[in-house]
Amino acid sequence: VRAAVERLSAPEKAEVLVEALPYLRRFAGAVVVVKYGGGAIGEDLSLFAQDAVLLHSVGLRVVVVHGGGPQIGELMDRLGKVPQFVDGLRVTDAETLDIARMVLVGKVNRDIVRALNVHGPVAVGVSGEDAGLLLARPSAPELGFVGQVEAVDPGILERLLAAAVIPVVATIGSDGGGQAFNINADTAAGAVAEALGAAKLVYLTDVDGVRTSPDDPATVQSTVTVDELDTLLAQGAVRGGMIPKVRSAAAAVRGGVGHAHILDGRVPHALLLEIFTRAGVGTMVDR
Amino acid sequence: VRAAVERLSAPEKAEVLVEALPYLRRFAGAVVVVKYGGGAIGEDLSLFAQDAVLLHSVGLRVVVVHGGGPQIGELMDRLGKVPQFVDGLRVTDAETLDIARMVLVGKVNRDIVRALNVHGPVAVGVSGEDAGLLLARPSAPELGFVGQVEAVDPGILERLLAAAVIPVVATIGSDGGGQAFNINADTAAGAVAEALGAAKLVYLTDVDGVRTSPDDPATVQSTVTVDELDTLLAQGAVRGGMIPKVRSAAAAVRGGVGHAHILDGRVPHALLLEIFTRAGVGTMVDR
Amino acid sequence: VRAAVERLSAPEKAEVLVEALPYLRRFAGAVVVVKYGGGAIGEDLSLFAQDAVLLHSVGLRVVVVHGGGPQIGELMDRLGKVPQFVDGLRVTDAETLDIARMVLVGKVNRDIVRALNVHGPVAVGVSGEDAGLLLARPSAPELGFVGQVEAVDPGILERLLAAAVIPVVATIGSDGGGQAFNINADTAAGAVAEALGAAKLVYLTDVDGVRTSPDDPATVQSTVTVDELDTLLAQGAVRGGMIPKVRSAAAAVRGGVGHAHILDGRVPHALLLEIFTRAGVGTMVDR
Amino acid sequence: VRAAVERLSAPEKAEVLVEALPYLRRFAGAVVVVKYGGGAIGEDLSLFAQDAVLLHSVGLRVVVVHGGGPQIGELMDRLGKVPQFVDGLRVTDAETLDIARMVLVGKVNRDIVRALNVHGPVAVGVSGEDAGLLLARPSAPELGFVGQVEAVDPGILERLLAAAVIPVVATIGSDGGGQAFNINADTAAGAVAEALGAAKLVYLTDVDGVRTSPDDPATVQSTVTVDELDTLLAQGAVRGGMIPKVRSAAAAVRGGVGHAHILDGRVPHALLLEIFTRAGVGTMVDR
Amino acid sequence: VRAAVERLSAPEKAEVLVEALPYLRRFAGAVVVVKYGGGAIGEDLSLFAQDAVLLHSVGLRVVVVHGGGPQIGELMDRLGKVPQFVDGLRVTDAETLDIARMVLVGKVNRDIVRALNVHGPVAVGVSGEDAGLLLARPSAPELGFVGQVEAVDPGILERLLAAAVIPVVATIGSDGGGQAFNINADTAAGAVAEALGAAKLVYLTDVDGVRTSPDDPATVQSTVTVDELDTLLAQGAVRGGMIPKVRSAAAAVRGGVGHAHILDGRVPHALLLEIFTRAGVGTMVDR
Amino acid sequence: VRAAVERLSAPEKAEVLVEALPYLRRFAGAVVVVKYGGGAIGEDLSLFAQDAVLLHSVGLRVVVVHGGGPQIGELMDRLGKVPQFVDGLRVTDAETLDIARMVLVGKVNRDIVRALNVHGPVAVGVSGEDAGLLLARPSAPELGFVGQVEAVDPGILERLLAAAVIPVVATIGSDGGGQAFNINADTAAGAVAEALGAAKLVYLTDVDGVRTSPDDPATVQSTVTVDELDTLLAQGAVRGGMIPKVRSAAAAVRGGVGHAHILDGRVPHALLLEIFTRAGVGTMVDR
Repeated sequence: VRAAVERLSAPEKAEVLVEALPYLRRFAGAVVVVKYGGGAIGEDLSLFAQDAVLLHSVGLRVVVVHGGGPQIGELMDRLGKVPQFVDGLRVTDAETLDIARMVLVGKVNRDIVRALNVHGPVAVGVSGEDAGLLLARPSAPELGFVGQVEAVDPGILERLLAAAVIPVVATIGSDGGGQAFNINADTAAGAVAEALGAAKLVYLTDVDGVRTSPDDPATVQSTVTVDELDTLLAQGAVRGGMIPKVRSAAAAVRGGVGHAHILDGRVPHALLLEIFTRAGVGTMVDR
Repeated sequence: VRAAVERLSAPEKAEVLVEALPYLRRFAGAVVVVKYGGGAIGEDLSLFAQDAVLLHSVGLRVVVVHGGGPQIGELMDRLGKVPQFVDGLRVTDAETLDIARMVLVGKVNRDIVRALNVHGPVAVGVSGEDAGLLLARPSAPELGFVGQVEAVDPGILERLLAAAVIPVVATIGSDGGGQAFNINADTAAGAVAEALGAAKLVYLTDVDGVRTSPDDPATVQSTVTVDELDTLLAQGAVRGGMIPKVRSAAAAVRGGVGHAHILDGRVPHALLLEIFTRAGVGTMVDR
Repeated sequence: VRAAVERLSAPEKAEVLVEALPYLRRFAGAVVVVKYGGGAIGEDLSLFAQDAVLLHSVGLRVVVVHGGGPQIGELMDRLGKVPQFVDGLRVTDAETLDIARMVLVGKVNRDIVRALNVHGPVAVGVSGEDAGLLLARPSAPELGFVGQVEAVDPGILERLLAAAVIPVVATIGSDGGGQAFNINADTAAGAVAEALGAAKLVYLTDVDGVRTSPDDPATVQSTVTVDELDTLLAQGAVRGGMIPKVRSAAAAVRGGVGHAHILDGRVPHALLLEIFTRAGVGTMVDR
Repeated sequence: VRAAVERLSAPEKAEVLVEALPYLRRFAGAVVVVKYGGGAIGEDLSLFAQDAVLLHSVGLRVVVVHGGGPQIGELMDRLGKVPQFVDGLRVTDAETLDIARMVLVGKVNRDIVRALNVHGPVAVGVSGEDAGLLLARPSAPELGFVGQVEAVDPGILERLLAAAVIPVVATIGSDGGGQAFNINADTAAGAVAEALGAAKLVYLTDVDGVRTSPDDPATVQSTVTVDELDTLLAQGAVRGGMIPKVRSAAAAVRGGVGHAHILDGRVPHALLLEIFTRAGVGTMVDR
Repeated sequence: VRAAVERLSAPEKAEVLVEALPYLRRFAGAVVVVKYGGGAIGEDLSLFAQDAVLLHSVGLRVVVVHGGGPQIGELMDRLGKVPQFVDGLRVTDAETLDIARMVLVGKVNRDIVRALNVHGPVAVGVSGEDAGLLLARPSAPELGFVGQVEAVDPGILERLLAAAVIPVVATIGSDGGGQAFNINADTAAGAVAEALGAAKLVYLTDVDGVRTSPDDPATVQSTVTVDELDTLLAQGAVRGGMIPKVRSAAAAVRGGVGHAHILDGRVPHALLLEIFTRAGVGTMVDR
Repeated sequence: VRAAVERLSAPEKAEVLVEALPYLRRFAGAVVVVKYGGGAIGEDLSLFAQDAVLLHSVGLRVVVVHGGGPQIGELMDRLGKVPQFVDGLRVTDAETLDIARMVLVGKVNRDIVRALNVHGPVAVGVSGEDAGLLLARPSAPELGFVGQVEAVDPGILERLLAAAVIPVVATIGSDGGGQAFNINADTAAGAVAEALGAAKLVYLTDVDGVRTSPDDPATVQSTVTVDELDTLLAQGAVRGGMIPKVRSAAAAVRGGVGHAHILDGRVPHALLLEIFTRAGVGTMVDR
């Protein structure tokens, strides 16, 4: 890629910058919530960090929300912890919750904050437990400390955004009594975006977007409405890890978020290209 | 140029944007005073406006200072006004001053404000007479109402910048008694930059930069120090309209302005390329 | 007049000042929009400036709106520009607009700002094109660039008033695309007063007020209601240049402005006498 | 006086108002501390209130400081309290202090606040004991609870002035332990003016100004310097109740107060005439 | 009591402090209006001052409202002023009003302010006449200058509270024309609490609370509702000086005040114990 | 303890609260940095949380700094990670750092935040990596990622304190390039206290204070000066884990911190007793 740029002339560079102008004007001060992570965390973290800091630097207010399933699994393996299942669903007991929290807050969150702070002291790690951010309740009693979002108090995020900081949110919530719960990061991201009245909710995934036929790459949609998403869900055309993303995207847009985006995080700088150029790299969810 | 961009791939676009990141971080909130105009006002006004609004949109605080000699001459011709000279220098009588003020404030300033406001309500025209901005005194009694800057009160500019506005300054000053004077825009730009503690003072010119041998394009300097500028001035290597630019650039940098730049305004988007890319398009003046 | 004052005793002076006290209390912080100009600009400018600065100094927030028809005609004459007519109405072609803008923004506006700033750095010139102040559309296609007010964005005026500045507004508007239009200053003043929620809208004219019989000076009204103004307009009792003033005054009062005043600007210090003494010098428009 | 005004024409009224303009500009936002009271409180209270509220209404920040010796004496008489003397000086025992405080804070202060508040809710009564305003120590042990100012904490006055209120100060101070002291109002006024960095300190008295020969009305000075005041004090040309006024005026001007004024409070609206007209009604103390 | 504390161990002290924690959290920033006085002012003033300053110091916003009937009567006696009666009700003529005002504002208010300021410059005395705080009208024409509250303008109290000051309010009100009235302090306290949206309105009295049988100490209620208070009033179970307290408490709670409390002010530190411990010392009025 | 309180009478409770008053006044708004942890984290966490929230609730600004050596060792054991030593000092390799960070940020920090948030949403977890808080450099190259504090940027803490939040700091720092380091919590606490200009720096330890003879409990000092600490360090009278505490305490007090305290964290509510009662529970370090 470096070589390609060397080949770019001054007029070419200028045109790319100028192409960004209308988007800069439109999104000045807008809140963008980016769900990053799961499978996507890895070698591309520094590319992602460049994108997030660039958005931040040109005046958008960026919130990063992340999960960390694979990393949790890895530490559980190393500790010889064998997962328990109830009706095929994994149970989160107290020890598993502790491990999840250590990994999410103490490792994945830290790695993202560090990657962002390479560009200056811009990022601060936050857990959903901090200052009442994510109020949680059990998803299902038999699953233990797996929670779902009951309410979001965005105060701490608003204060950090007002202080020109990028909050990086680990999706551990807590109930009124201080009991922690592990929360699905996709749904947490949607709830945070709605609570902040975000202009955009972006899911960085490892797929190329929403397809009408899951197995046919040619059916990737550049735009879908929330009603079309309902239909696709009902038809079973959305599968696996895409389900919480699609559901949360639809709910957030219905709840007042400007647009949701399901991007292909494997494309370098997907976030930047989606927001500042005419080049789309995934599916945009519209009302 | 348009065609060139069509050829650019997503990775190429991303790399140009990412190249801007460190400059965005470095100049966040910085004041940039841009002297625009004289010969340069014309077809490239909309390109200049794109650049200025883009700088503004990504968080720099932009002040535009302009003159308008050719446009003044044109209206004087049309009005059949014959210039008077004393020792070869043009005299600005009361009527000429009136014409200059009408053209600068009522035409050139308006054209620049309009070009900027195509991108949103971002620009406000200001005359140096407004709220005591440019306090002037006569340059030489025999030349009439040609003035030089005695003091700058940047209050009105600071208030407009704080309100996220681009002030566009016509360089008419006034003395304590309300008498207006026409002021050289190059020196006014330097004085304004110094009063604002600007990070950058940029002259958009129709030359390719500062040359050590005025007739040899190969001697254009990419960087010069203020002391080297003094030497070049003493050697007579700086000529004509470059003299006030070079003098004001040196004085401003000595007075606390971060850097001055003498750019080739004929290069499209010269301002953007100079500030956001590694591609230099003129001479930078350093301490 | 000077001699008269010399004759005034200390008790007489004190009583005049004390007479102003209830009005000072009532109008503290109130916005007063004054339409000044057209025929009225001339020898009395310094008297007007004293009045406006005095209002400003005692805590009212003053906005001056002006036109400049005669001055535009004068420059057109000098440039040998022959007016065009369509069905008896003057056409504003591009060149005429340019001339109007130069005169209004570059000469009349400047002269008013200068006269005010004799008393300190209190005034700033503003064009309706600045920061989206006056959004205009064509009045009638065949008349060219004559516009009417579509919307007022008072933001820039509010910021200047908050900064204890007197904005002086030249009534050039622009449409969304940046095209300028010449706007009738009487109607612009009314629209600005309404947008600012002004307490008073004052027209300084060269007549003695609103008459029920236009040719009978004895029929000048000291107070009229907006409904009475409608009747007078319908009866043809209002003529010529008074029509836009009366229409705008009625519309502004209906739109929330406290009172409108049509004063005789030929009376020295008419503005001051109307606002701070029991002596009325024209017609007050009430709801 | 009323009749005189009826005779005044509109131009005459206008000229009086215009005469005030330069003074309005000069004193905008300035702090004026007015010592009112002692012998002067009486029928002219409503005239004084008009003046003070007018100054307040046009943007000056007014503080009223008052004593109340005669009123204290009157209540002591009624209560059959016989004054005690030590070496010819009156002793303030605990009961006398109580009476003084009741009269100053509960009667004189209230009467002044009420007279001001006739014009709107502008005034608030303050005792020097409030929020540490006047820190006092005994003047002389044998005199009991007569105090002098050790330090002024102007915080409460600054907060009230910032809230656009006229503080009316009764000159009771207290020491660190909460013991109250009666303080001479002339010296307290000077100390308050100095602590506030006032532009003016005005004593409203029942004499016509500072005389170089105390018995010769022809020797009233319109201006004196602080050094000249020292000389007059040394020569014994200042007598009786004028001594603390003259001493405090000189000290305050030396301590940074702009000017002190010793006015003839028997002239109606003396305060207004002194500040807003060319007519002087007493002595101004200059550096 | 001192000796008792010496006997307390560190764990005992810690537990008392910790017992206060939930109350501290609950009442952070809450407004508490305390009616103090009448019979209660005396030797316990310094204990009361400790309580009020302690509430203030831990973040509650305290307003003290006081009367002073006994002290007024005492000065009237000393001045040989014989009370007048109309139909058995005492008449407040102009002289009596003057005496009441002197005592309330100049003595009782001062004593309370002084006792509070022993702990630092925290208190400021305010009369209901200040800045329009208590707008009054006559209670009954034949009673003279006895007033009732027509409206409360809490602006001055809010400004003082915002400045971290404890306002101490003497309940003299005034009508629009500046005429003062003596107002019952119990009802004034209720009106002030309602205007401030207080969390608590506390009456410090010399009884042990609200009894259902006035002569039976065993019938003291720890909690009553406003409806129960109505019933007790109708049954005649509330007598004498308790009537205005009970009526005002009920009205204030109905008007939005969180809770009213009728405490036994003879218990040392009753205020503190009621607010920060589980030990109740009177009756709480609930909705 | 509960039983003891039940025995306490209302006067006893009141006296304990009143005893706190002068301390409340003195420390209003003061910053208190509390080092908590290491051996001390455990069953007493909820007692500590009560103390910290109580300080916070009465207006002190509390920062908690913690380590977590034992907890790190425990997870390393479980992961079968064998510590490496160089010259007897433990080496922190990349994997160890990762584990330390997970435990400190993801477990210990979380447990403290949760315990505080039982009382309301008051606490937010912060890592020294966030927003440039702790800039670190390697302590000794051969020890790997053990760091020492090079600079503290207290901005994020100041913002959280201004937002009425208790920051809980995990002492992981990072260098300019984003490399994390494990930092001794005792020294980090001192550096943070100094950067914040704290009034107090409190070490909660498992000893009874600073002894002049380490083995003689009778030699515990209630107060020592920084010079005396130097002497004790030089004499070897300070040992083991006390060395960094004593050094940091002395450095912080020399650097402007008001007082340092080395408390016996095993005494329940030691923090509260030290700050709000006359009962001392450790050693205070004075200048």
